[in-house]
Amino acid sequence: MDRLPRVTLLDSTLRDGAQGEGVSFSVTDKISVVRALDALGVDIIEAGNPGSNPKDAEFFREARGLRLARSTLAAFGSTRRRDTRPESDAQLASLLAADTGIVVLFGKSWTFHVRAVLGVSLEENLAMIGDSVAFLRSAGRRVIFDAEHFFDGFAADPDYALACLRSARDAGAECMVLCDTNGGSLPSRVAEFTRRAAVVGAPLGIHAHNDSGLGVANSLTAVEAGAVHVQGTLAGFGERCGNANLSTVAADLQLKMGRDCLGPGALAGLAGAVRRVTEIANLTPDEGMPYVGRRAFAHKAGMHVDAVRKDPASFEHVPPGAVGNERRFLASEVGGRSVLMDRFRRILPDAAKDSPEVVRAAEALKKMEGLGYQYEGAEASLEILLRKAAGSYVPSFKLRRYRTTGEHPAEDPSACAHAMVQLEVEGRREISAAEGCGPVHALDLALRKALVGFYPSLAGMRLADYKVRVLPGTGATASVVRVLIDSSDSRDVWTTVGVSADILEASWIALVDSYEYKLSKDTQSETRRETGDEHADDDDAEDLGRACGA
Amino acid sequence: MDRLPRVTLLDSTLRDGAQGEGVSFSVTDKISVVRALDALGVDIIEAGNPGSNPKDAEFFREARGLRLARSTLAAFGSTRRRDTRPESDAQLASLLAADTGIVVLFGKSWTFHVRAVLGVSLEENLAMIGDSVAFLRSAGRRVIFDAEHFFDGFAADPDYALACLRSARDAGAECMVLCDTNGGSLPSRVAEFTRRAAVVGAPLGIHAHNDSGLGVANSLTAVEAGAVHVQGTLAGFGERCGNANLSTVAADLQLKMGRDCLGPGALAGLAGAVRRVTEIANLTPDEGMPYVGRRAFAHKAGMHVDAVRKDPASFEHVPPGAVGNERRFLASEVGGRSVLMDRFRRILPDAAKDSPEVVRAAEALKKMEGLGYQYEGAEASLEILLRKAAGSYVPSFKLRRYRTTGEHPAEDPSACAHAMVQLEVEGRREISAAEGCGPVHALDLALRKALVGFYPSLAGMRLADYKVRVLPGTGATASVVRVLIDSSDSRDVWTTVGVSADILEASWIALVDSYEYKLSKDTQSETRRETGDEHADDDDAEDLGRACGA
Repeated sequence: MDRLPRVTLLDSTLRDGAQGEGVSFSVTDKISVVRALDALGVDIIEAGNPGSNPKDAEFFREARGLRLARSTLAAFGSTRRRDTRPESDAQLASLLAADTGIVVLFGKSWTFHVRAVLGVSLEENLAMIGDSVAFLRSAGRRVIFDAEHFFDGFAADPDYALACLRSARDAGAECMVLCDTNGGSLPSRVAEFTRRAAVVGAPLGIHAHNDSGLGVANSLTAVEAGAVHVQGTLAGFGERCGNANLSTVAADLQLKMGRDCLGPGALAGLAGAVRRVTEIANLTPDEGMPYVGRRAFAHKAGMHVDAVRKDPASFEHVPPGAVGNERRFLASEVGGRSVLMDRFRRILPDAAKDSPEVVRAAEALKKMEGLGYQYEGAEASLEILLRKAAGSYVPSFKLRRYRTTGEHPAEDPSACAHAMVQLEVEGRREISAAEGCGPVHALDLALRKALVGFYPSLAGMRLADYKVRVLPGTGATASVVRVLIDSSDSRDVWTTVGVSADILEASWIALVDSYEYKLSKDTQSETRRETGDEHADDDDAEDLGRACGA
Repeated sequence: MDRLPRVTLLDSTLRDGAQGEGVSFSVTDKISVVRALDALGVDIIEAGNPGSNPKDAEFFREARGLRLARSTLAAFGSTRRRDTRPESDAQLASLLAADTGIVVLFGKSWTFHVRAVLGVSLEENLAMIGDSVAFLRSAGRRVIFDAEHFFDGFAADPDYALACLRSARDAGAECMVLCDTNGGSLPSRVAEFTRRAAVVGAPLGIHAHNDSGLGVANSLTAVEAGAVHVQGTLAGFGERCGNANLSTVAADLQLKMGRDCLGPGALAGLAGAVRRVTEIANLTPDEGMPYVGRRAFAHKAGMHVDAVRKDPASFEHVPPGAVGNERRFLASEVGGRSVLMDRFRRILPDAAKDSPEVVRAAEALKKMEGLGYQYEGAEASLEILLRKAAGSYVPSFKLRRYRTTGEHPAEDPSACAHAMVQLEVEGRREISAAEGCGPVHALDLALRKALVGFYPSLAGMRLADYKVRVLPGTGATASVVRVLIDSSDSRDVWTTVGVSADILEASWIALVDSYEYKLSKDTQSETRRETGDEHADDDDAEDLGRACGA
């Protein structure tokens, strides 16, 4: 049997992805995204619409000097305006000026859109497609044709939709992409229409959106029906419900359907690339994202944990390492002592299941969980708990007391709360006070003020998120509350937890863990640097980052 | 042509959903989720695993008094242990004790799992399935059989996988559910194996996970191949990458495939139900979720906005109102005045869309949402906002000032915080102080102390839950926080919201709304009693309860 053809991938994070709410990239961001996609091995990077966005035109000027290992840049734009010649069309000129190897040209293929939105005759639309493709080809560009609304168009008038594809093909486009622009098609329709579009006798592609929760499924279905090119966005960014998630598509194609797309070995960089792109966009990662999310291989139910220990295939569809991800056993009441061992060995490499340190840690964990602590999302606090059990924890400071006040109305609304903190640091008694716009904020500022003279690296740390909830099974403000704090510095993000009947005390406990964790990871880096073991330092920092969901 | 059969939906938010990282429900939360799913019209609510989780057993005891309009509760658990009789199996006993109309029983159908994980013979596993189903049937329960790992099992040994289904069917299970437990199957496999499972001659169901980004697609594919029952979780919660998102599945089935599942008109409540469940779980809503996310009908690109203005079908696959969502133009936000009308007419029955009161309410709502308020889960606060706009709101008290202090260590840990509150009540100046185990607790106690002499009914009110979240897009303790408070009395549960940079002030705002709401609903009851209109009173109280998601 012949080998099935390779599938080329086009990433549109920088074009269609940037149309998503809350997504916006600077020119520098765009260059970083291009580098991440090139390192992953994506064939084509659709990087902007220079005719409609001046920032995109600027990007293409900057990008001219970029040397990419595997990817080809593409500019995106529409067919010429009605009743003009391509040579005098400003939009086509901007596509040439972008100076990319490939141009992705989109045109209408749905009679309703041609008439109601564009307002031209069906014949003129065909001419607009053909003329524009031919013009770009004559200037030496490779052209990919995006048939906008192809599936809705085909349902309304199959002959016309196919005529649009033929017009592009005849003018020299190398791939005709069937777009489910509104994201409303079911896989059964995508399969049928893709098969019927094969009569055009040219390479076909698919561009799917996720409005029906089927962006990935429609992409795979089109490939099964003969498409050899898939468009999407690496982390699923895009207008409305997003574009087909290209990281999921790539993993499904390569691991499940035996279709090569990213090249050998490249999938191991998948999770890292998605995190990198999400970070550049300054968005919160979708932790449940298939294959690459932090939770994608996280096991919580006790039965599942036991079974995965016996054989990972029992509850994992692929090995997490295949996509650059990691298995995680969530430290929770259902997990038990065996879950701790992996983590414990990072601190005490020789620890056995019955070592006194491990027994102590398991008991401490159980006790803390009884009080309402939950470590599955707070791995920095868990590490501190394990260090305490291992006897390797040395606190950097000790609380003597704190006091807070809050008032309303306040003279200055940004200072409606005050905090005073008394600490013992390196044998010295330290007292500091701060004002803030709430007692927790004031406490954090006072604590930082007291410590930063001793530990200057704390200045580079910030609190990234703060969540409070009353514990399940109890009720109201008099009950026990659990506070989760996410902190970050320039390298990592880590999460700590505190529990108390008093929201201030719970916040304090989580704050202290966060500061202690930061200091402990800085010390480890420092030690490594002094011994010249820079590489191990990087590895370890990455490890900590991963452990904490960086 | 015969009409295709109705598809029954089973929601497992409270069971499989609760196995998701970071998801945890109190008993009160669970009751609220059940009410939301019942109001939406979900057929079966799988609400817990009483044999493995004592909290679930407690929930089922509490749930016994619940009267549901459309849904049937189900308890979930496994087949009997090896080599025991069903009568002496503790796990099966706990399923009976849950006293639900339906039991969902899961058993192994993959030979690898039977041997490697369970460690029993293939014959004993078949007996475990048959015995357990028969035992539950003889106790009068309807039984749904979940064939765990069916697709992996069928791939390895089709005859054995089918024998498991037959064993359950012969013992009286009413539906055999094919589970893609590891989420690794492609739609093509799901279609083929579901068709081949039809030889068993019994109603089939599908239980899909999203590990390959195909949870929804696999559910729809199974229905096309003959399944008549779909399991999932309303907002997609679940272990690893989550379960099939039931809100997407329901909308696809009903709007795209013409398959009835939620009943006529029910889809209009879809977006609200998903937001409510997410809010109860204290999770950040997925704004890009198909159909129901805040971005699902948000248009950003200029061309799209223009086209949608000409004809919404140009870039929308379904009308947003069909699923209870709204169109949003991101450039120029268009207010949802029409959405307010239903609620407004409860206060001012003659209000029209252009009444000055309605205009005022829409403006106030827009302003508050700009500040970070969100009323989806806080309808008691919304009612107060509308009363203010209608001019019918008379505050029962007025804050002059409050002050709080907190300290650590405290002499008495249950009194580590103090609050002083100065109010004006019925023209008199009232001052009170209280101590509590946190500043919010102390504030609540002081407020109650000041008011209860004037309004004795407040003594019967309690705070049931308290949740805090930093608003998305901002960061850390200095950012704006949103506080949600659930309060209850002997009849209702209601939710209020407060937003501020100061967690104390945000809590105060939500507390005040809660007290005011309680007083206003008591006054209405009182009026009804005086006029002898007792029946109307009952109706109204129920209405309020529903409005607040009680």
